[in-house]
Amino acid sequence: DSGSLDQVARILNRGLSPSDIAHLLESTPPKERSILWRLVDKDLEGEILQYLSDEVRTDFLSKLNPQELVSITEDFETDDLADVLQQLPEKVIQEVLDSMDSQDRHRIEAVLSYAEDTAGGLMNTDTITIRPDISIDVVLRYLRRHRSLPDMTDKLIVVNRKDEFIGTLPITTMLVASPSSTVREVMNTDAVTISVNTPDTEVANLFERRDLVSAPVLSSEGRLLGRVTIDDVVDVIRDDADHSLMSMAGLDEDDDTFTPIIKTAKRRAVWLGINLITAFIASAVIGLFEATIEKVVALAVLMPIVASMGGIAGSQALTLVIRSMAVGQISRNNLGWLLNREFIVGIINGTLWALVVAGAAIVWFNDLMIGVIIALALMINLIVAAVAGTMLPVILRARDIDPALAGGVILTTITDVVGFLSFLGLATIVYA
Amino acid sequence: DSGSLDQVARILNRGLSPSDIAHLLESTPPKERSILWRLVDKDLEGEILQYLSDEVRTDFLSKLNPQELVSITEDFETDDLADVLQQLPEKVIQEVLDSMDSQDRHRIEAVLSYAEDTAGGLMNTDTITIRPDISIDVVLRYLRRHRSLPDMTDKLIVVNRKDEFIGTLPITTMLVASPSSTVREVMNTDAVTISVNTPDTEVANLFERRDLVSAPVLSSEGRLLGRVTIDDVVDVIRDDADHSLMSMAGLDEDDDTFTPIIKTAKRRAVWLGINLITAFIASAVIGLFEATIEKVVALAVLMPIVASMGGIAGSQALTLVIRSMAVGQISRNNLGWLLNREFIVGIINGTLWALVVAGAAIVWFNDLMIGVIIALALMINLIVAAVAGTMLPVILRARDIDPALAGGVILTTITDVVGFLSFLGLATIVYA
Repeated sequence: DSGSLDQVARILNRGLSPSDIAHLLESTPPKERSILWRLVDKDLEGEILQYLSDEVRTDFLSKLNPQELVSITEDFETDDLADVLQQLPEKVIQEVLDSMDSQDRHRIEAVLSYAEDTAGGLMNTDTITIRPDISIDVVLRYLRRHRSLPDMTDKLIVVNRKDEFIGTLPITTMLVASPSSTVREVMNTDAVTISVNTPDTEVANLFERRDLVSAPVLSSEGRLLGRVTIDDVVDVIRDDADHSLMSMAGLDEDDDTFTPIIKTAKRRAVWLGINLITAFIASAVIGLFEATIEKVVALAVLMPIVASMGGIAGSQALTLVIRSMAVGQISRNNLGWLLNREFIVGIINGTLWALVVAGAAIVWFNDLMIGVIIALALMINLIVAAVAGTMLPVILRARDIDPALAGGVILTTITDVVGFLSFLGLATIVYA
Repeated sequence: DSGSLDQVARILNRGLSPSDIAHLLESTPPKERSILWRLVDKDLEGEILQYLSDEVRTDFLSKLNPQELVSITEDFETDDLADVLQQLPEKVIQEVLDSMDSQDRHRIEAVLSYAEDTAGGLMNTDTITIRPDISIDVVLRYLRRHRSLPDMTDKLIVVNRKDEFIGTLPITTMLVASPSSTVREVMNTDAVTISVNTPDTEVANLFERRDLVSAPVLSSEGRLLGRVTIDDVVDVIRDDADHSLMSMAGLDEDDDTFTPIIKTAKRRAVWLGINLITAFIASAVIGLFEATIEKVVALAVLMPIVASMGGIAGSQALTLVIRSMAVGQISRNNLGWLLNREFIVGIINGTLWALVVAGAAIVWFNDLMIGVIIALALMINLIVAAVAGTMLPVILRARDIDPALAGGVILTTITDVVGFLSFLGLATIVYA
């Protein structure tokens, strides 16, 4: 009844922060989610939207008309607004832009002109800039004229008359400096800067390695365009890390956990279809050896062991290389070492488990030859798996194919085919 | 020759930041790594160590004697020193502690007394505290008496005489406040605080949701103990996200990419052994139906399709739930909805792909019955996979077992067993 809904609304709007409400919405199935959303105070909606993941946000926004869109996104930071707009139809973007005052529109158009996954798409234009020749005392008085400073302001940016970057003045430096010294005397001219076209994953690595809170973004001519802040970088880090995990299962890191049934079924069906092709290829390979299997049924019993052990060994190498590539540890210089190590590890573990499996197979089927065959097949497959798992991500990346998405499927195809082919092939030579 | 080594040393020590050197070391195979490490300037070693991942750092530290350890870790922040010490033998820890002055020793012992994966283990003790009754002008003069302020100082912490937390004074607030107003008038009494025993993943979620740069850590009595900063939280976020990815392949997120051959082979062998058990269970199930396979060899050709499609469908549900649990989206309230959706998606995709596979099987083997059998088996396995993939992480977590590590192995066992059992079992009923 409406009485208890009122109560829920009160708890929601007074008891929780906008980010908590966003988290609650994301943790709620579709029907309850739209009820909750309707209970949210109108003036909180804008801030909540900024904390929502792409899919959930787009879903809410798609139900608004352009006027509502404009009023709800009024207080958005430039980068968040650009993100939102990029997910809307071209016509709606234009209507929203038209309704803004010209200064805001120019700022947002500037950010929109950069790809979403670059420093340009990630940056805010809320920089506080100062000139090098004024004193710290003047800077302090200048800051005091502001009603508030942007969040995550850990440094002021020093520019010349042409807006060209000269250096940064970290707030912590400013606070311990003598008020009479000039900005030029205490500023950091060695500060980390980011070029506007830098990919966002590189920006994230830079922030992680240099422990940054914010960094200025420069045009190719060295002019200050904006700044990237750690809160947005944290989202990139989380998304990047999630990307590998989710892609390896054919999922998207932006997906809503509570996507409705039909939409979920459609997305999953595609992935199952791709993997079905792999499964049919494996079956076709087995089909080549029907006659041998008919003679020695034990082969059918043991063959999944060869394929699955290859899959496991390969996916260890694959996952390691995908992760190492994501943090920028793999290069032409060390790939040879890595390949060599994986190859030798493949031989060692191939031999070890070949002996174990062979022993078990001989005892189980009381047949020495089947032990020899499975041992050889297992060694072949584990070595091929190690090499394939190591090289696949490198090869795929060079062809601009996402290794996390395609690597697993291709690797499984290889280890299945090589596993069945070597095991059943050797068996055919021996038993036929 | 030593001439070119000198050149490398010069580039290393003058051209790269300590974090870049750390990254370079992590991206280098063992032998070259120790050569590089010997070329590093002694006075850079300490800072470089702070940026290294656990395994690489422990490796370097294990080669030092306690005196060297003390001198190298002199300038470490409290939390980093605690991290390092926790990885060393008890005897060495004591020697290092004994060599410190008593104030430093007390600080480090305080951090060491908290578990590494809690706010206490993550915090630094370098807080700048102020009293509520002084004016902003006095605060500014007080700060100017420092030679430098700690990194990531975005707020000062307001405490009373007993060191009890009262509020925070964000630097950005202080800079726009009138110099004559008191701290009490402008401070934030509603600031986010962290209890010392909060798990580090919860701290990370809090930082992410509230866009924090630092947050005070309080004892259960409300006394200020230290502060957590975003640079350390970013490491937690990265590790947490990596953990799921790496664990699902039986790898450890702390592992060195360039671990030597023997150590790698040993670690991988364990994971292969565990998965071999799964493979043998699947084989044992197939073994039950040897007679049926002997009669209809087509079953051996098609059976991997049933098992692998189940594995793929299950791992999609599993990965989704593991990720959602990690970001705190799964609770008793929404698990039912999720299970219901996965169940229905299982039915939909089970039916869809059952029809496709059945059609292909009928054409391939010119046998209507085999189509019916594989269709039924595929539906059963995809539905079981959906339910198992959804419930497994929840059940494992309730028993304090890591779902990312154990989930995949258990799920594969289930989908293999159910896949082979349903397909070959139905076939036995029909053909026997």
